[in-house]
Amino acid sequence: MTFTTDTSISSFGGKLLKLSHDSPVTGTKMVVNIYLPHQYFDDETTKLPVLMYLSGLTCTPDNASEKAFFQPYANQYGFAVVFPDTSPRGANIEGEDDSWDFGTGAGFYLDATQKPWNKNYKMYSYIMKDLIPQIASSYDTLDTHKMSICGHSMGGYGALMFYLRNPDVFQSCSAFAPITNPSECQWGKKSFSNYLGDDKTLWAEYDPCDLVKKFTGDKRPILIHQGTADAFYAKDHQLQPEKLVNASTQSPLNGMIDLHLVDGYDHSYYFISSFVKEHCQFHAKYLGLN
Amino acid sequence: MTFTTDTSISSFGGKLLKLSHDSPVTGTKMVVNIYLPHQYFDDETTKLPVLMYLSGLTCTPDNASEKAFFQPYANQYGFAVVFPDTSPRGANIEGEDDSWDFGTGAGFYLDATQKPWNKNYKMYSYIMKDLIPQIASSYDTLDTHKMSICGHSMGGYGALMFYLRNPDVFQSCSAFAPITNPSECQWGKKSFSNYLGDDKTLWAEYDPCDLVKKFTGDKRPILIHQGTADAFYAKDHQLQPEKLVNASTQSPLNGMIDLHLVDGYDHSYYFISSFVKEHCQFHAKYLGLN
Repeated sequence: MTFTTDTSISSFGGKLLKLSHDSPVTGTKMVVNIYLPHQYFDDETTKLPVLMYLSGLTCTPDNASEKAFFQPYANQYGFAVVFPDTSPRGANIEGEDDSWDFGTGAGFYLDATQKPWNKNYKMYSYIMKDLIPQIASSYDTLDTHKMSICGHSMGGYGALMFYLRNPDVFQSCSAFAPITNPSECQWGKKSFSNYLGDDKTLWAEYDPCDLVKKFTGDKRPILIHQGTADAFYAKDHQLQPEKLVNASTQSPLNGMIDLHLVDGYDHSYYFISSFVKEHCQFHAKYLGLN
Repeated sequence: MTFTTDTSISSFGGKLLKLSHDSPVTGTKMVVNIYLPHQYFDDETTKLPVLMYLSGLTCTPDNASEKAFFQPYANQYGFAVVFPDTSPRGANIEGEDDSWDFGTGAGFYLDATQKPWNKNYKMYSYIMKDLIPQIASSYDTLDTHKMSICGHSMGGYGALMFYLRNPDVFQSCSAFAPITNPSECQWGKKSFSNYLGDDKTLWAEYDPCDLVKKFTGDKRPILIHQGTADAFYAKDHQLQPEKLVNASTQSPLNGMIDLHLVDGYDHSYYFISSFVKEHCQFHAKYLGLN
């Protein structure tokens, strides 16, 4: 199925497209936003790289589109930004809307194996086998062979997980306040047990702290920002970026986790937008744009 | 009454303060956000200029704080940004929450003369006689004698109105998609008749198209951006910036309304954030910062 453009909004010289499509993978209508910088409209022949941004728990594609402030840097460097949704919506599964940290808005970017979630909650395959190919076929001048990935919180985990599993697909990875060890935190345990069951070997296929040890890609830094006033970091221990640093010491990425603990920053979009410039600059380098 | 700091949020190297205070003018608790750039914390002696941003219908101080992206430019030039609320809230007046374009979230920055609104809906006096003096007395290093004003939609009208009435208080004025002639549009007629009654001479004291003819300040440009895809402009004729340009020809500001019609932009924060950089640059000039 191709995308329907529900809305096209002028923004910073480019356009934000709000798209929807019927996904054969999730069996639901999916929404996704794509920001096209001015270069897309100025030059119809040059292919533009893509930065994928994965959002955190509860978010739709709109939150980051409105509040993360990628647009000026997408225009500065010349890349598109893709904002996928965080889960299927309206799958009509009992309990899907009961929690803010599980079900709707909390798909954890994995392919569920457990009933009743395994019919629709297949965000890993949705991103890799539906969304990315759809973008490639629908937008001739977006180059999905030059693609990087970043994300926030659950989406930071998603970015790390997709990158560590698919170094041939993504040129670089960064994260804002990522969940780095979902197998060992409350959010991750709740979702992994419900979506994946009890088999910890399956959990390991999605856990960045396991995946980093098996990484086969180029030795490139992974940029992470974490605010010290983020209660999910400092109090609830949901995020634990130090665990990824420690795990990486037994991996080809030893010394490559570029963790910045930033004093006084919280978990909100005020934090994300404050460091988006650095993340865009980082990805632009690996996308060959600066 | 002094401000209570309800929240302090790190953002772009500075801090966004969410403040509240009991206002003797409105008789209610009022909320206001203030963004303090990094210069405020780096140097405790140099006084910083202030840019006041007035929001549009329905907004709280949070909308623009999250979505307008003044922060990077406030840091670049070194000024604070004040985001007042758009009305008293919780005044317990019958009907105050019935409309999105009147009552709560729609105070129109005027002093109501008509019952039951005249007890609390006094946003003109609140801004001029309560908020600005409070800021001056609470923040030693904010210089309210170097202050400029801007706003969006109803807040664009507010910015024009405050500036044209108080050229001794505000150094410069700009607006995003302002209501320029409230006496002659649906939004303005509804609010002016309910808040001010039938006396059109009183309406004229708040209408930029009337006020511009009596302007006594320095001959400085007023910067206005208006999106051509804004339905409130193109379809509903609520905004009518051309009327201000026309009215200004009979005024000391003839030729000084610097109206930019920007192709394809709507009425949203995607539009505002796209041109905030230009507006900050404009005000920085008149605040002596570039």
